[in-house]
Amino acid sequence: MKEHDHAGRPRATLEDVAREAGVSRATASRAIRGGDLVSSANREAVQEAVERLGYVPNPAARSLVTRQTDTIAVVVPEHDDRIFSDPFIGRTIAGVGEALADTPQQVVLLMRSRSRGNEQLAAYLRGGHVDGIVVVSHHRDDHLAREIARSQLPTAFIGRPLEDGIDLPYVDLDNVAGGRLAAERLLASGMRHPATVTGPQDMVAAIDRLAGWGEALRAAGLDDSVRYEGDFTMLPAQELGRRLFEEHPEVDGVFAANDLIAVGVMNAARERGLRVPGDVRIVGFDDTPLGMSTHPQLTSITNPAGELARIATQLVLDQLAGERPAWPVILTPELVARESA
Amino acid sequence: MKEHDHAGRPRATLEDVAREAGVSRATASRAIRGGDLVSSANREAVQEAVERLGYVPNPAARSLVTRQTDTIAVVVPEHDDRIFSDPFIGRTIAGVGEALADTPQQVVLLMRSRSRGNEQLAAYLRGGHVDGIVVVSHHRDDHLAREIARSQLPTAFIGRPLEDGIDLPYVDLDNVAGGRLAAERLLASGMRHPATVTGPQDMVAAIDRLAGWGEALRAAGLDDSVRYEGDFTMLPAQELGRRLFEEHPEVDGVFAANDLIAVGVMNAARERGLRVPGDVRIVGFDDTPLGMSTHPQLTSITNPAGELARIATQLVLDQLAGERPAWPVILTPELVARESA
Repeated sequence: MKEHDHAGRPRATLEDVAREAGVSRATASRAIRGGDLVSSANREAVQEAVERLGYVPNPAARSLVTRQTDTIAVVVPEHDDRIFSDPFIGRTIAGVGEALADTPQQVVLLMRSRSRGNEQLAAYLRGGHVDGIVVVSHHRDDHLAREIARSQLPTAFIGRPLEDGIDLPYVDLDNVAGGRLAAERLLASGMRHPATVTGPQDMVAAIDRLAGWGEALRAAGLDDSVRYEGDFTMLPAQELGRRLFEEHPEVDGVFAANDLIAVGVMNAARERGLRVPGDVRIVGFDDTPLGMSTHPQLTSITNPAGELARIATQLVLDQLAGERPAWPVILTPELVARESA
Repeated sequence: MKEHDHAGRPRATLEDVAREAGVSRATASRAIRGGDLVSSANREAVQEAVERLGYVPNPAARSLVTRQTDTIAVVVPEHDDRIFSDPFIGRTIAGVGEALADTPQQVVLLMRSRSRGNEQLAAYLRGGHVDGIVVVSHHRDDHLAREIARSQLPTAFIGRPLEDGIDLPYVDLDNVAGGRLAAERLLASGMRHPATVTGPQDMVAAIDRLAGWGEALRAAGLDDSVRYEGDFTMLPAQELGRRLFEEHPEVDGVFAANDLIAVGVMNAARERGLRVPGDVRIVGFDDTPLGMSTHPQLTSITNPAGELARIATQLVLDQLAGERPAWPVILTPELVARESA
């Protein structure tokens, strides 16, 4: 029996499309699903047949059989205002999209809800809507890692999960080495009175960058106690920068835990009449385009969002293919020397 | 008959969950789907029952009945490198997420594929995976509007669709007025030799901004012929800025069609030893955080991405609810006066 559409017309079937296009049912199916193994001539013939007949495939029926959704979730447990003010997060999401560009998988973006926190997000993950999960910008207390471990879905974190007793695949930057690189650059340029504006200390990247910074300073016999905790955004960092230069006028080198913080600190230094790098040197982190908009341009540490995203996506695809990929994968940061330090 | 999971255990049903939680089947269902009309006590009881029983809902079964996917697509027919270098696009995606935060709808992000262009994206839209579509950053020749009109899905464009014969709901900024505002600001600050670096002339925002700019200049009796076509990104704009100041050393006012272009032009001016705003005044567009990272800070025109996204999302939700919302909705831009002009 044929299904009917809302107007009562019989609904075209896949068989109708295949007949109209003059191809096999399997070829028609592959062409419609966007598979790769179809000649462009066949693909065009099928597409024309689909349009002529008004064929609407029924993914729900396929999904009911395979329990596959062809969807990878990018989970960002952050408020939306953070997600798109921070270029690193945006580049990560785009990187996952790029890594999936030649697969049938689509990216669904799950963010923290303004009114209901991570609850709705977790319900969606539990609900069987996705085949795999990439997590970025998570916090120690968001309990997502535990929720995700329970889902047993193929998963990869960008950045080591911080929750206790969680053992899930991840890719990470060696942020400790990154903090060390920043310190070494500032030491080499003559800094005697260091300070740092950190990221939020419930996030692994912020914790590790601070650890590497403190380690290198102590090794050089310098005091590492001047630190202000920021939240990886620009305007709060500018306010922290004002306090920093007010409370510690001797400071002549600042490690900003990301480029947004660095811009805030640079604006605060300028307000106070300090020259950068003459009076105070500043190193940022993430090497975002923002670093090329400032004057002087920002010396920064690389954090290859696209590469981290590509590797995380591959970890998920490997698990989906029934493999057990090796993890963690740890990338090494580099210093990009510009003008600010 | 009970379904079984992969390990052969009988699969818990919704009835099992309701009994375990001591609530009605309808309440259990609402709690699991994330509906709003459930007390937090019941929600917790159901959540605990779900976890104890290892219940996995089957959205495909529900979807097969309702043909609803609870998914809104944000379609961005751009290469990924553009999507996340431009803060406007990111803020738009976040804005759709925010507008859906208290609905059961999730955002699926569809981007242009590096290898296959918009083909895969269009196939996904045809495939019945989504309930509605928000389109942003489209181009004249991407043929998406035609594809989307054919799908008959509730749709809203952010920015007027440019394809001929397309009549789909949209929300837009009055970009002509925005271009005029930029010209008037520069005229008021004494510009005698205007130039502009435009956005890509296959995009409606770029076309309209240039139209408003030219109109205001001609009204003031000035020549509007010095124009360079950029692509809304920073480094190509810096190169265009170099050519501009080389070929037209008399230029003392530049309208940059977005803030990224403005930063590129400002860097080019600085390379040439030109003072901003002393020798050359610069106005950007979009009023992004980037404008606060430059020195001098950037005068810009507002382009409220979040508000445009919220309205577009509401246009889609209204159509989904069977209503026929009024469109187009046109927002009015404002000048944000900072230091560069």
